[in-house]
Amino acid sequence: MTKYLLLAVLTGFFTQAKAAPAPSNGIDLPRTYKNWRVIGVSHRDDNQSLRAITGNATAIQAARKGKTDPWPDGTILGKLVWKDSRHPQWQPALVPGELVHIEFMVKDSKKYAATGGWGFARWRGMKLEPLNNDGGKPCFECHKAAASTDHVFTRPAPLP
Amino acid sequence: MTKYLLLAVLTGFFTQAKAAPAPSNGIDLPRTYKNWRVIGVSHRDDNQSLRAITGNATAIQAARKGKTDPWPDGTILGKLVWKDSRHPQWQPALVPGELVHIEFMVKDSKKYAATGGWGFARWRGMKLEPLNNDGGKPCFECHKAAASTDHVFTRPAPLP
Repeated sequence: MTKYLLLAVLTGFFTQAKAAPAPSNGIDLPRTYKNWRVIGVSHRDDNQSLRAITGNATAIQAARKGKTDPWPDGTILGKLVWKDSRHPQWQPALVPGELVHIEFMVKDSKKYAATGGWGFARWRGMKLEPLNNDGGKPCFECHKAAASTDHVFTRPAPLP
Repeated sequence: MTKYLLLAVLTGFFTQAKAAPAPSNGIDLPRTYKNWRVIGVSHRDDNQSLRAITGNATAIQAARKGKTDPWPDGTILGKLVWKDSRHPQWQPALVPGELVHIEFMVKDSKKYAATGGWGFARWRGMKLEPLNNDGGKPCFECHKAAASTDHVFTRPAPLP
């Protein structure tokens, strides 16, 4: 009897969901991010990386209606970033290598008024090490270049 | 009364879903493709394009479990392809320009036995002009380079 109880406890332990990583700049990792839809993709020559840009339901609805100036409160944009790797079977193709980080912009025009209405969060690598950089102020500094598009670089990619 | 009836009919006409495009190689456009999840991204130097690779529920389940050798029957992989464009606010970034095409690989090991178990479909541009190229045989010719990975070039990108 005790043996079966122990087995039940151990099974529960090993099948439970992975613990959430620590917050980044006070923001919790959006647990459903892997199920979000695509808004765009990009490749950066300056740091040899490939990116998928995704969004939560609020973001997708806004993107599809063209209502992104500004993006509505409740929007979360996700960016999944991998180092470039050459495809072994098709050399001219760059494909995802090692994961660099996953990062998110959370729109709350009141809470994040000091950083353009956006909260910035990032977790590095497969271990999801949280970035805590003065409430995302350095992130916002770079995003000022996109001030004319609500501090968001991504423009939703056209789809029929 | 007749006037209101006419108005109701016209409203119904203009708000109905867009008509489906003609099939490509006998395959219908998967109507829900815009809601599929991301499997990977790529950039091709040989034709200056950016791609998002997505999949239906069967594909996502297989990708996340690492059960892609072979991909199960019922898998549909989507590839959304745009011409490269330089980001006006961040020059080293390549971002989606004009849509080139959306294309799909449909796994049915019996139905498509002559082409590696895969049906190949493609619709060009925002007008979704269907490709009909001898049942996708020319597509299969190129995909033979990926014979060791079930004729699929895409490897699911790592995510924590």
